[in-house]
Amino acid sequence: MDQTSRLAALIQQSIDECIHRQRALLADLGSDVTPLINIAEQFLSGGKRMRGQFAILAYDAVSPSFDPLATEPPKQVLLAAAALEFFHAAALVHDDLIDKSDLRRGRPAVHKAFEAVHQEQRWQGSAEHYGISTAILVGDMLQSWADELFDQAVRLVKPDSAQAARAHFNTMRTEVAAGQYLDLLEEQLSGFGTEEEQLERATRVLVYKSAKYSVEAPLLIGAALAGASPDAELAFSDFGLPVGVAFQLRDDLLGVFGDTELTGKPAGDDLREGKRTVLVGLTRQQLPANAKRLFDELLGDPTLDAEQILMLQRTIRDAGAVESVEKMIANNVERAVEALAGSHLSERAKSSLGSLAEKAANRVA
Amino acid sequence: MDQTSRLAALIQQSIDECIHRQRALLADLGSDVTPLINIAEQFLSGGKRMRGQFAILAYDAVSPSFDPLATEPPKQVLLAAAALEFFHAAALVHDDLIDKSDLRRGRPAVHKAFEAVHQEQRWQGSAEHYGISTAILVGDMLQSWADELFDQAVRLVKPDSAQAARAHFNTMRTEVAAGQYLDLLEEQLSGFGTEEEQLERATRVLVYKSAKYSVEAPLLIGAALAGASPDAELAFSDFGLPVGVAFQLRDDLLGVFGDTELTGKPAGDDLREGKRTVLVGLTRQQLPANAKRLFDELLGDPTLDAEQILMLQRTIRDAGAVESVEKMIANNVERAVEALAGSHLSERAKSSLGSLAEKAANRVA
Repeated sequence: MDQTSRLAALIQQSIDECIHRQRALLADLGSDVTPLINIAEQFLSGGKRMRGQFAILAYDAVSPSFDPLATEPPKQVLLAAAALEFFHAAALVHDDLIDKSDLRRGRPAVHKAFEAVHQEQRWQGSAEHYGISTAILVGDMLQSWADELFDQAVRLVKPDSAQAARAHFNTMRTEVAAGQYLDLLEEQLSGFGTEEEQLERATRVLVYKSAKYSVEAPLLIGAALAGASPDAELAFSDFGLPVGVAFQLRDDLLGVFGDTELTGKPAGDDLREGKRTVLVGLTRQQLPANAKRLFDELLGDPTLDAEQILMLQRTIRDAGAVESVEKMIANNVERAVEALAGSHLSERAKSSLGSLAEKAANRVA
Repeated sequence: MDQTSRLAALIQQSIDECIHRQRALLADLGSDVTPLINIAEQFLSGGKRMRGQFAILAYDAVSPSFDPLATEPPKQVLLAAAALEFFHAAALVHDDLIDKSDLRRGRPAVHKAFEAVHQEQRWQGSAEHYGISTAILVGDMLQSWADELFDQAVRLVKPDSAQAARAHFNTMRTEVAAGQYLDLLEEQLSGFGTEEEQLERATRVLVYKSAKYSVEAPLLIGAALAGASPDAELAFSDFGLPVGVAFQLRDDLLGVFGDTELTGKPAGDDLREGKRTVLVGLTRQQLPANAKRLFDELLGDPTLDAEQILMLQRTIRDAGAVESVEKMIANNVERAVEALAGSHLSERAKSSLGSLAEKAANRVA
């Protein structure tokens, strides 16, 4: 088993222990609540565990007394890693609602799964609203469990480290909610600003909704738990932010060009949804007025058919936006690797972090 | 200023400090996120602060070195009280979505407020979905802030007390989400079970969704923060659970018979929504088959007009259900007061707790 799979399996253990504990607690409420805990378990049984792994690798980098290749990471960072995954699961459940995404990793999204139960059981009222309502509750519950695990984690470290890790966790949560709001807001605006303005806004969403949240924050949390100095934390930001940017730029490409078989989402999902990404911003910068008008008209139309999706994909590619984004990804990875090389981290830490960064930036799903 | 208003004002101060801090943090994201923090501030500027007050009074009861009438409660319990209010606000924002409640304290619910902004600005896409989406994010953010405040609170007490308070907070959050789910599930079932079955289910929802959450858990959290022994905690459960039951039974009555001017909600709201409360269960127990069929048909019809509401109200009253519920409230208050009298708490604590319990059980809004 490679390091990635090994760490993912260890994080999964912590996740499963939490689910098991919650199942026992909820047993008092009777069997009617079983579907709630089952869906939580199912939703948390997949995924790459990238956030959790970044936390563990940062912990290792600061506290090289344990070798994640040889021994098991200490409980505090495994719990924190699981907390990050629960928080992420909560965010995804609510995000799928907001984005009206019906699929998640090839399976029905939580709101769709409960909507289907309502239909099968021929219950009264709106199946759609029942799906929305349960998904809201499932997300809320997962968020509570994330806190619970994070609290267990910080209780195992010195008060200063606990407080520092907490501060990163808190900032992360507030910033990601605000970033999601900015993203949502952007999709409502009927016009576009100037191309520069739009690119700036898209970049801000990318940084707050994803780059900081997906990579920088997990690194800072792992480092803080291990007692990193403010100086050492800086190295993780210098490395983590560009990796996070590359990660999200890749996500934007996958949202438009991704292989359904691998992503588990419909092709061109982001186009139907009208996501105003950096990729879209770069495309619009290059289009002549006529083509831009057509592009804007199609973007965000939920009824786009396969042919229209193909046309939009071609437009984006022909505008050179894919090439530009690939270049941005490569530049960001390079910047991250340079920051890593210039840091005082151990060779082993540099190698593990570099390899996970590479995976984050160049994944296919 | 009476004690209730004085404590509510002190809790409000802690709430305002948190909002102020979050506003400063979010300033980095630009002025677009201002509406998000403004709605949070507005939503948290009203309410009775009952949960926070129960926590403070329990803290006082266990640690009688401070007199809440004379001096300010210590920071740890004020922060915990504010945390409870943030958590409650988060739950209400999501609950209003789930219940399709358009009004909260006489003002538009959060999803309705953002829906209106979308309409005013003539943005593209669905105003309704934008309202739902922002309310999900606002609720998530408020839940994070609750957790943040709770962490600040427990950091100020001994590790054992912190862990005990945390455990109550964690259980409370999981149980209330599960209780909300049971409540929701109940409304989807097209038939009713036997009257006994339905009453049992209604009672379970009442206990988990409200009684434990609104009264018992805040008391246990306050007591744990002050270092209560398991024995002392028992006294709070014996007192708190019946008070919570009385509180929710009153809520059920207000949901059907409440004065719109006072509750800030439309008259008969619970009837249009089809809430299957104990009040409804007791009514159905008394109705002959024909009348029950008509009652079941109307209950939960969102288009009920004023006359139909009046008819349902009359049916409930004529079935003796109001009288029965009033009796149950009185019995529960009596049981709570007896538990209080038999406890080893100080006379001052008994008097403050008894008086807040009375308010919770006999409020008009």
